[in-house]
Amino acid sequence: MKRLWHWPLDPGCRTVRLALEEKKIAFDAKVTWPGATISELANLPPGSDLPVLLDASGEQKIIASGTHAILEYIEETDAAPRLMPLLAKDRAEVRRLWQWSETSFAEVNRSLLAERENQWVRRSKQSDTTRLREGIHALKSKLGFLEGLAGVRTYMAGRTLSLADLSIAAHLSAYDYFGDVPWDLTPDLKQWYARMKSRPSFRPLLADKVEGTRPPRHYADLDF
Amino acid sequence: MKRLWHWPLDPGCRTVRLALEEKKIAFDAKVTWPGATISELANLPPGSDLPVLLDASGEQKIIASGTHAILEYIEETDAAPRLMPLLAKDRAEVRRLWQWSETSFAEVNRSLLAERENQWVRRSKQSDTTRLREGIHALKSKLGFLEGLAGVRTYMAGRTLSLADLSIAAHLSAYDYFGDVPWDLTPDLKQWYARMKSRPSFRPLLADKVEGTRPPRHYADLDF
Repeated sequence: MKRLWHWPLDPGCRTVRLALEEKKIAFDAKVTWPGATISELANLPPGSDLPVLLDASGEQKIIASGTHAILEYIEETDAAPRLMPLLAKDRAEVRRLWQWSETSFAEVNRSLLAERENQWVRRSKQSDTTRLREGIHALKSKLGFLEGLAGVRTYMAGRTLSLADLSIAAHLSAYDYFGDVPWDLTPDLKQWYARMKSRPSFRPLLADKVEGTRPPRHYADLDF
Repeated sequence: MKRLWHWPLDPGCRTVRLALEEKKIAFDAKVTWPGATISELANLPPGSDLPVLLDASGEQKIIASGTHAILEYIEETDAAPRLMPLLAKDRAEVRRLWQWSETSFAEVNRSLLAERENQWVRRSKQSDTTRLREGIHALKSKLGFLEGLAGVRTYMAGRTLSLADLSIAAHLSAYDYFGDVPWDLTPDLKQWYARMKSRPSFRPLLADKVEGTRPPRHYADLDF
């Protein structure tokens, strides 16, 4: 049995949930605040943070923490369906875009997403409008790049679904939860996202409800 | 034959150089500014940036861009010596710390390292002292975490050298090039770094000289 500790609005945690669902790996999900101690995992190595996966199915308990460790781990150990192509050249393209997604969106997470969580989840009275504006600006520049890719490719890294799609869709879905993605500016990306959203693996994400928040109606709508 | 486009002061590029040297993979190094167009690689996919590796040794030319894509690629295709352990559990620990290194040090790269490059390489007249101070503060907090690890482990992820060591050492070496690592505050980490620095793979990094800069004497000194 596998167990995942995650925070529903964290894009990295969302990527892992999507991958587990795509691979139809059964897991038990535990909602946890980022930075909180996981009392069940006393021997968690120092500096571990969400997402954390415990795999107690083998002889030895295996703990993986961080998107990179977890996603490569499930790809290595639970082969089908693959979320990474077979050819080295294609794998390199998937990993390039996956890293692009994590690195580029980190800026949006720190500004826009963090500010939205402050506003709605932590009920902070003061809203840092500069940070919000910076975040929206950063998000728009990333969307421009993705629109170009979506215009020429079926999936982000080529012809088949991969971890690059899951990572990008997971990030966008977290921003979309707060209604922050200006979909109409990027029609090709919107089409790609509509396809991603229609996948069964996406359903748990679309059903997320975090206390204090209410996602816009279009968030869970497949025809948005 | 392999060819690497890299910027000598970029920690990600340094990580890749160390890995290629550790694996004794012959490559031809091309110094390039980050963000510059690589005219030789006209068909570089959109959004590619340094480091970029071209592998023209097989039937098909393979291009990998970004640390994640390149390092996993050479680990998959050039097996010995391994920079990743065999057991899934140990690989997860390597990838966790490798991701920790890239994510945590990104903050130091954006502040401290970027400011030093502005001062010395781009000869900017105005120094942003706030950004410098923030960078040094961020670096110190990361060093504290690493000192804890170095105190209990031979290598960062356990008993054998791995990509986690290379990534962490590459980042520290870039900051050390500008004399910014307060080694005396972290004796165990300093010892680990002395061992890393003594490896033959480190020699090319210690010989780096970027126009406009002069690394402190201790930078290339094995007994620093």
